[in-house]
Amino acid sequence: MAKEKPEIKISTESYKGVRDFYPEDLFVQNHIFDTWRRVVESFGYSEYTASVLESAELYKAKSGEEIVNEQTYTFTDRGDREVTLRPEMTPTVARLVAAREKTLAFPLRWYSIPNLFRYEKPQRGRLREHWQLNVDIFGVNSNEADVEVITIAYGIMKAFGAKDSDFIIKINDRKLVNVLYEKFGLDEENSHKVSKIIDKKDKISKSTFEASLFEIMGEKSVEFAFLLESNDKLLDHLGENKHSKELIDLIDKLEKNGVKNVAFDPTLMRGFDYYTGVVFEVFDVHPDNNRSVYGGGRYDDLLDIFGARKIPAFGFGAGDVTLKDFLMSHELIPKYTPKTKVYICSLSSDFIDESNSIAMKLREQGINVEVDFTGKKVGDQIKTASKHGVPFTLVVGENEVKTEIYPLKNLETGEEKKVKLEEIVEVVG
Amino acid sequence: MAKEKPEIKISTESYKGVRDFYPEDLFVQNHIFDTWRRVVESFGYSEYTASVLESAELYKAKSGEEIVNEQTYTFTDRGDREVTLRPEMTPTVARLVAAREKTLAFPLRWYSIPNLFRYEKPQRGRLREHWQLNVDIFGVNSNEADVEVITIAYGIMKAFGAKDSDFIIKINDRKLVNVLYEKFGLDEENSHKVSKIIDKKDKISKSTFEASLFEIMGEKSVEFAFLLESNDKLLDHLGENKHSKELIDLIDKLEKNGVKNVAFDPTLMRGFDYYTGVVFEVFDVHPDNNRSVYGGGRYDDLLDIFGARKIPAFGFGAGDVTLKDFLMSHELIPKYTPKTKVYICSLSSDFIDESNSIAMKLREQGINVEVDFTGKKVGDQIKTASKHGVPFTLVVGENEVKTEIYPLKNLETGEEKKVKLEEIVEVVG
Repeated sequence: MAKEKPEIKISTESYKGVRDFYPEDLFVQNHIFDTWRRVVESFGYSEYTASVLESAELYKAKSGEEIVNEQTYTFTDRGDREVTLRPEMTPTVARLVAAREKTLAFPLRWYSIPNLFRYEKPQRGRLREHWQLNVDIFGVNSNEADVEVITIAYGIMKAFGAKDSDFIIKINDRKLVNVLYEKFGLDEENSHKVSKIIDKKDKISKSTFEASLFEIMGEKSVEFAFLLESNDKLLDHLGENKHSKELIDLIDKLEKNGVKNVAFDPTLMRGFDYYTGVVFEVFDVHPDNNRSVYGGGRYDDLLDIFGARKIPAFGFGAGDVTLKDFLMSHELIPKYTPKTKVYICSLSSDFIDESNSIAMKLREQGINVEVDFTGKKVGDQIKTASKHGVPFTLVVGENEVKTEIYPLKNLETGEEKKVKLEEIVEVVG
Repeated sequence: MAKEKPEIKISTESYKGVRDFYPEDLFVQNHIFDTWRRVVESFGYSEYTASVLESAELYKAKSGEEIVNEQTYTFTDRGDREVTLRPEMTPTVARLVAAREKTLAFPLRWYSIPNLFRYEKPQRGRLREHWQLNVDIFGVNSNEADVEVITIAYGIMKAFGAKDSDFIIKINDRKLVNVLYEKFGLDEENSHKVSKIIDKKDKISKSTFEASLFEIMGEKSVEFAFLLESNDKLLDHLGENKHSKELIDLIDKLEKNGVKNVAFDPTLMRGFDYYTGVVFEVFDVHPDNNRSVYGGGRYDDLLDIFGARKIPAFGFGAGDVTLKDFLMSHELIPKYTPKTKVYICSLSSDFIDESNSIAMKLREQGINVEVDFTGKKVGDQIKTASKHGVPFTLVVGENEVKTEIYPLKNLETGEEKKVKLEEIVEVVG
């Protein structure tokens, strides 16, 4: 039914801070997703997912106050439920595991590629919506889990074509940091505050950093800040202990797996409150980015919030936005090629039926084929094929229908071959 | 940092009307998505996507009042923007095409598999969130487009293993219906009202249907309702005209493509206001469902709302929820099999390093391998493999490390073979 045209014309722009994915964009996105999938599935991880809508209470217990209060999309539905567009996947995967903890078999290896929302000012590397690979292993207390997951994080970078010198993997252990806090006499509340300050270290000035520490620790803050600067001095200061031994063992095991670009960094905190042990980050060393691409760690207590039994867990999240920046800076993005292999042009509209019938035969051979229905000049039809990035054209006219031999043209090389239908599959691969 | 445990335990249930996808669920979902992709890509369609967040104004012009006012998730963000969780994809794809109408080459064949939200009472076949295949062709005025898209809709059902007798494709043309409205002297407003009543025909009682028509058309409503009941009488009444000829031509062309289970249905309306010509629905004939699985039609005016030039379009949307009901009722859902092929068990914790090293070698051969880190008895490790649905186990102990020959067990048949590492790829495929 024709309705009146709206007087105000509607904008074609997307909502602020989110992206449209045209086929060329989705091609890159799918390259990222496919590479993620290939690597994590080779380690036996199974894919799960859930809705982007979650009850708001899910994030209130453990995600860190700033994230829930200031940075989420939370609204009240008509049934008076407080709903959040998930800002991270870990609470969701913990919820799914807790719901079936009695029937699931451990170790449980799961992954997902959800979209996540953060309500914040869009900037380089930070959008309001991004997609994130989440890789988690549940039910393993020993550091075999830590080793495997960090090996996967490394393997992903290599699968994208990155060299060891393009990135480093920073590692820390919150338990080791807790030993330091104890030595400096910090109680739980102040430890939490100091962690938040260290987490912001790279985003604030040196003087603000020092002043913030001073406010909590007084004179001792000078030595404290000094120790954070040097791994050797810090390890000396802490002396031999269980946690430093474990960290050294972890780094040794990673080396055995070929993961050699690993560095201990006592200032590595990760934003979320739920981490309980080893945390790590994949850090881009390219001067354009020079920042964390992704990371994760051990969270052994998160399932408590559902009243489930304790299930140890280790996992990480890798975002598509920072990863894409990494791939662009290191020139690792492949060239766009559509999945369509052949574009059929008709010499006139009279041959469209025949073109359709040829297309159906090629499709049965597993070739993806597009047919031009416009009735435009053949030259214009070939231009369309070229604009779509389709590699081959095939022209159908009276002669072709009669002889059943067709001119198949490679648009990149300009080479043309006369072929029978059954020969096409060999040429276009 | 350890924080106090929350006093109230958080629910493990998902938000109302949305689904969690455990690996077994996502397996079915991915089977649906993969089948959709395979068929539409064979016709040369390229994938695009966009964010689930859209400006609310996008839906106000053409989607139909009920849908926007009562059935969407719409909220105001902190920047005072009215935002909607997209209830359908067509306005989004129209937006993307309109934004680049000058540089895109037509005919343009695009598809997407977005998630969509409707705020309504969850019921069989209708959830608050579902995924929907969207297939659209832009820039083709002739019915070649209609034929291709309906052929794809049919091809998808066949690709899932459906028989012709499992479903019918109902077809109508809004232009033909407009001829009928004119014959009955209905003006634009009343035509719109009558369309809405016909659209609800199957959801309301016969007497309500007749009374609603009577309210608008008076005595004439009796003949009007009678004509809707019989295709022959209706076509007789309308006489030979352009639109009935076109519909017959369309049905003929579909038959030539092998699409024979097509039926003309003058009561087929489709809910959205933007359709301008042929509309169709794939209808499940199974008594458990007996309803529309999916459908679409021609919408030649939708790009007007962006102030773009007129670009004819034909498309459909196929939802995962109704399709899954169809597949279940017709017993067309495949059995769950994980992508992991081999589960490695260690005779004791001493052999976990060796198990890891074997796993890495198998992964290099393209085999997906999971390693058990628990140190449990081998029998319990095999139980875990079985619960995960992994088809093969491989046990590593002192003997195996020495001889480099490993017992590979098929968990389904119970058969065990002694193999070298390089032989495994042949056995597990």
